[in-house]
Amino acid sequence: MKMTPFKTEQWMTDHENDAVFNLTDTCVQPLHMKELLQLDSDGVLDDVVLDYGTITGLLPLKKEIASLYRKADPENITMAHGCSQANEMVMNEILQPGDHVIAFTPSYEQFVRIPESLGCTVTELVLHEEKGWQPDVEDLRRAFRQNTKMILFNSPNNPTGTVFEREFLDACASLCRKNGCWMFADEVYRSASQPSLFDLYPHTVVTGSLSKMYSLAGLRLGWIAADRQLIDRLNFRRDYSIISEGPLAEAAGLAALKAKKQILARSESIISESKAAVTEWLKREPRAHVQLPESGTVAFLKYDAAMDSRTLAERLLKEEGVFFVPGWCFDCEYHLRLGLTRGRKTMEKGLALFSGFLDRCSSHESV
Amino acid sequence: MKMTPFKTEQWMTDHENDAVFNLTDTCVQPLHMKELLQLDSDGVLDDVVLDYGTITGLLPLKKEIASLYRKADPENITMAHGCSQANEMVMNEILQPGDHVIAFTPSYEQFVRIPESLGCTVTELVLHEEKGWQPDVEDLRRAFRQNTKMILFNSPNNPTGTVFEREFLDACASLCRKNGCWMFADEVYRSASQPSLFDLYPHTVVTGSLSKMYSLAGLRLGWIAADRQLIDRLNFRRDYSIISEGPLAEAAGLAALKAKKQILARSESIISESKAAVTEWLKREPRAHVQLPESGTVAFLKYDAAMDSRTLAERLLKEEGVFFVPGWCFDCEYHLRLGLTRGRKTMEKGLALFSGFLDRCSSHESV
Repeated sequence: MKMTPFKTEQWMTDHENDAVFNLTDTCVQPLHMKELLQLDSDGVLDDVVLDYGTITGLLPLKKEIASLYRKADPENITMAHGCSQANEMVMNEILQPGDHVIAFTPSYEQFVRIPESLGCTVTELVLHEEKGWQPDVEDLRRAFRQNTKMILFNSPNNPTGTVFEREFLDACASLCRKNGCWMFADEVYRSASQPSLFDLYPHTVVTGSLSKMYSLAGLRLGWIAADRQLIDRLNFRRDYSIISEGPLAEAAGLAALKAKKQILARSESIISESKAAVTEWLKREPRAHVQLPESGTVAFLKYDAAMDSRTLAERLLKEEGVFFVPGWCFDCEYHLRLGLTRGRKTMEKGLALFSGFLDRCSSHESV
Repeated sequence: MKMTPFKTEQWMTDHENDAVFNLTDTCVQPLHMKELLQLDSDGVLDDVVLDYGTITGLLPLKKEIASLYRKADPENITMAHGCSQANEMVMNEILQPGDHVIAFTPSYEQFVRIPESLGCTVTELVLHEEKGWQPDVEDLRRAFRQNTKMILFNSPNNPTGTVFEREFLDACASLCRKNGCWMFADEVYRSASQPSLFDLYPHTVVTGSLSKMYSLAGLRLGWIAADRQLIDRLNFRRDYSIISEGPLAEAAGLAALKAKKQILARSESIISESKAAVTEWLKREPRAHVQLPESGTVAFLKYDAAMDSRTLAERLLKEEGVFFVPGWCFDCEYHLRLGLTRGRKTMEKGLALFSGFLDRCSSHESV
């Protein structure tokens, strides 16, 4: 199976270590192991035996995860190595060569490249910036085919922050009912208050992890929620892949979910602060346009400057230490992915430097 | 991609929790987190920041892993979620529909089912029990084709303990040179003294982990060693899968490899004790035949009794608490996988109970 480089991930890998002001990271400021150990008041981490653990996932952990959904039992959950590997397993399990799938653009490249590598045809529906980064129901109806096997949502969407509207989702569900098409939602950016697609529609599979809102990407603890039949199939498939997620990551994840109120309160506070800094800055910066998302950690900033996004992002990083993923990674020029994850101070300083850079560019142009 | 259930892994998942005397586990008696923390004299685990970590793997860890090979640099290494996921990535990256591959039987089912699921044709060469579980060079020559893309070794082999002989490997390498075929060896059971295929032949990729000889399956820390070009391709692919192995598992793995002398001495002692118990028992038990392996943790026991391996393993577990994976899981009847991982006491007690069971069966038969 051929895979082309994943542009966003490669950009992060190649550049993030040079960032002084990381204005693009999608994970809320990461916790340290020491902080997690302090939150582990029951001491579950101390007693871990380093065997494979419970192959299909630690039951108390699956109970905590199931409680994040209205309609899930632990039997509806299986574990993965991060949300990304969860997504890969779902696509590998369900999709066959010749299937058609519907994804969105701009979105996370995984949802296009993996189906393509499996021999599927992909239609990408445009998320319209002028409609608040929402897709069009008519586009959906035109795209849907007899052999459409899956609609792949990332909700909230990376990089636009789109939370798909109920009317659009209802239209999807209505089409899916006709031919048994799956609705698949990567909800890694979902906040506690946002309804999950798992609770809204049948024949739906969703994924999540502790990486973004829980500040614990380092645990690489992801999961899948689906009907029991699909969970059984995925558990069979896991034996050929990760076998188990492992008792250390699972115990750490259990400690984190038991302390989820504290962790999420910290995250919401960092995101709010970051949003406030952006809002203030936008009042003074007419060359930038951002629709701040209702939930999640990302937004897609549009800028007015005669410079392609890749050049701009590279120069900004080199000259000012300000780090963005360019729209080029999402095939969407004159945009930058904005991560609302580093709090007020970093946001304010980084955005001020960005404005200074735009000043210099425009004065240079006018010379 | 369709996958059928992985018989060995399913057997373990379904039954291992009922084991009183686990005579089949392939991992040396697991370490506890507390023990690993005690070994971590540099305190590398304390300071872990729980972000994605170094995406392509922590450099000091890759240095430690590279030192397990004569010819590897850190640039020849990438990380995976256990050896199993490492194997999956290697096969996914290299194999294409229509390729032919050569595997062995009895062996680890992953090396047949994943190539099949990718649309490859698989020839399984027989490991001959009467030849010390070695394959036949003539069988190899007959099986090798113009479009053979990969020969898949598990060395030492699960379940037979086979370490492939140099003459056979040389014949493979000579055939592979003709058409650019890959030699791929899962060396998860490799001991420190056993040469790696990576050091012996060009165009070779090997995998390993801390699960078996290092007693740390719970870290799910696997790796791949290959030429830089393949490592680059695998690193691109990882972005669509695990993204990173994660800083917690990597820091724990670094601590373990820094203490590898102590950990491996403990393992070798447990394996030696287990072997000694088997050797003693074999002198008194004419109905069992075992070729103890020179390295690794597994052997394939043949028994003389008129009972298929699945029934025998199920009854032994239920009636005596003695746990084996039956030969049925490896398509090889009247055998049981023997794991030399639980030390003298468990081995002696479990094997005595097994003999008692065989006594009862034969007296029942003769009635």
